[in-house]
Amino acid sequence: MAPDGSALEGRGRFITLEGGEGAGKTTLSRALAAALAEGGLPVLRTREPGGAPGAEAVRALILGQGPWDPVAEAMLHFAARREHVARSLEPALAAGIWVVCDRFADSTLAYQGAGQGLSRDVWERLCDLALGPLRPDLTLVLDLPPERGMSRALSRGDANRYEMQGEAFHNRVRAGFLDIAAREPGRCAVLDASRPADEVLSLSLAALCERLGVPA
Amino acid sequence: MAPDGSALEGRGRFITLEGGEGAGKTTLSRALAAALAEGGLPVLRTREPGGAPGAEAVRALILGQGPWDPVAEAMLHFAARREHVARSLEPALAAGIWVVCDRFADSTLAYQGAGQGLSRDVWERLCDLALGPLRPDLTLVLDLPPERGMSRALSRGDANRYEMQGEAFHNRVRAGFLDIAAREPGRCAVLDASRPADEVLSLSLAALCERLGVPA
Ligand SMILES: Nc1ncnc2c1ncn2[C@@H]1O[C@H](COP(=O)(O)OP(=O)(O)O)[C@@H](O)[C@H]1O
Ligand SMILES: Nc1ncnc2c1ncn2[C@@H]1O[C@H](COP(=O)(O)OP(=O)(O)O)[C@@H](O)[C@H]1O
Ligand SMILES: [Mg+2]
Ligand SMILES: [Mg+2]
Repeated sequence: MAPDGSALEGRGRFITLEGGEGAGKTTLSRALAAALAEGGLPVLRTREPGGAPGAEAVRALILGQGPWDPVAEAMLHFAARREHVARSLEPALAAGIWVVCDRFADSTLAYQGAGQGLSRDVWERLCDLALGPLRPDLTLVLDLPPERGMSRALSRGDANRYEMQGEAFHNRVRAGFLDIAAREPGRCAVLDASRPADEVLSLSLAALCERLGVPA
Repeated sequence: MAPDGSALEGRGRFITLEGGEGAGKTTLSRALAAALAEGGLPVLRTREPGGAPGAEAVRALILGQGPWDPVAEAMLHFAARREHVARSLEPALAAGIWVVCDRFADSTLAYQGAGQGLSRDVWERLCDLALGPLRPDLTLVLDLPPERGMSRALSRGDANRYEMQGEAFHNRVRAGFLDIAAREPGRCAVLDASRPADEVLSLSLAALCERLGVPA
């Protein structure tokens, strides 16, 4: 957070990182938040599901139990998201803080929708209920063949319930993210996540420069 | 459950018990389920939040943490409800089993709506998402001055987060239940819960006889 709140001009920008398992979201979120902070911007780095105490508790429940009914699972994700929005994201953005968020609502559409068959209509209705008018200013979609992401994620050694789904599931999730980006090209930038991490950061900073006017 | 599924004629009936803390819902649900079973009907007695494994886990989360954002809390209740509907209520009703359910969607409208300010519009949208076409065939509203219910509940000695709210909250909840009953007199019967438990059971059986055609 900026030492002097009064120095913040207007609302912060809301940047989300999306993509499959092992695509490099968490790695990029660290590097991107550090780069923005070095540039003098107040930055909050956060993640979903989670990012607020109640939301982290819901995250543990979603990942620890199951299988859930698809609509129930989506509702749990959006209950956690609502806590995150109300307690962390909205107050930060209103205070002029930039937010770098590791997964957001697009992940629910890709995983529960494209992956598990939840309808886009239900997802949109849950967005309306949970998010109010909040939408990301920029979404970086880290695109990678699922088998490459999976081998990265497994080498990390903490497979969760989603990671343990089969190859067909992860192919649908990847296609789901690309479909989201194709529908909203103004909000989304697709990045080649097979490049080395420092190149992915450069591509991201270029997208921020082009889309949000941040000096790269 | 009936020993021979084929003997069940059509769909079971869905009976919900509603009211404030200590109104006698759990006491009545036991007596009512026993009376129906003695009458030869296959009966499932269940409760909310809970009634299915995932839903019980959400119940523990709702009651154990908090305070929640009001919309997040309502979403958690409806995520639990969706699990309960999909895994317990719908299969039972489809199999011809009658269901006696201790609290259902009206409790969310009375507690989160009348009690905590959640809008009826949000509640209706969550009902549409979570319940599909399922609605109770009969709702027994156990009406009691909150101070009497509270002294009963406290003598039971397991005060939860809702029970610990103040008197004004419980008065709003009571008024919320009466408003629900006034809007849907065909579905709801208001019972005087200050009467002894055996009289409340008799009043309930009379309502079942009149509304659902069950021999009392
Ligand atoms: N661009 C990259 N190239 C190679 N390995 C990477 C890259 N980005 C991240 N990794 C490594 O892959 C693994 C998964 O990265 P992570 O950032 O945790 O992915 P995600 O959060 O998308 O699941 C980690 O071990 C990380 O160090
Ligand atoms: N009609 C009644 N008259 C007096 N006491 C009752 C009556 N119904 C229930 N009780 C007692 O009041 C307490 C709360 O009843 P309970 O059924 O647990 O209420 P609820 O489930 O609505 O919170 C219990 O100790 C119960 O034995
Ligand atoms: Mg990660
Ligand atoms: Mg009870």
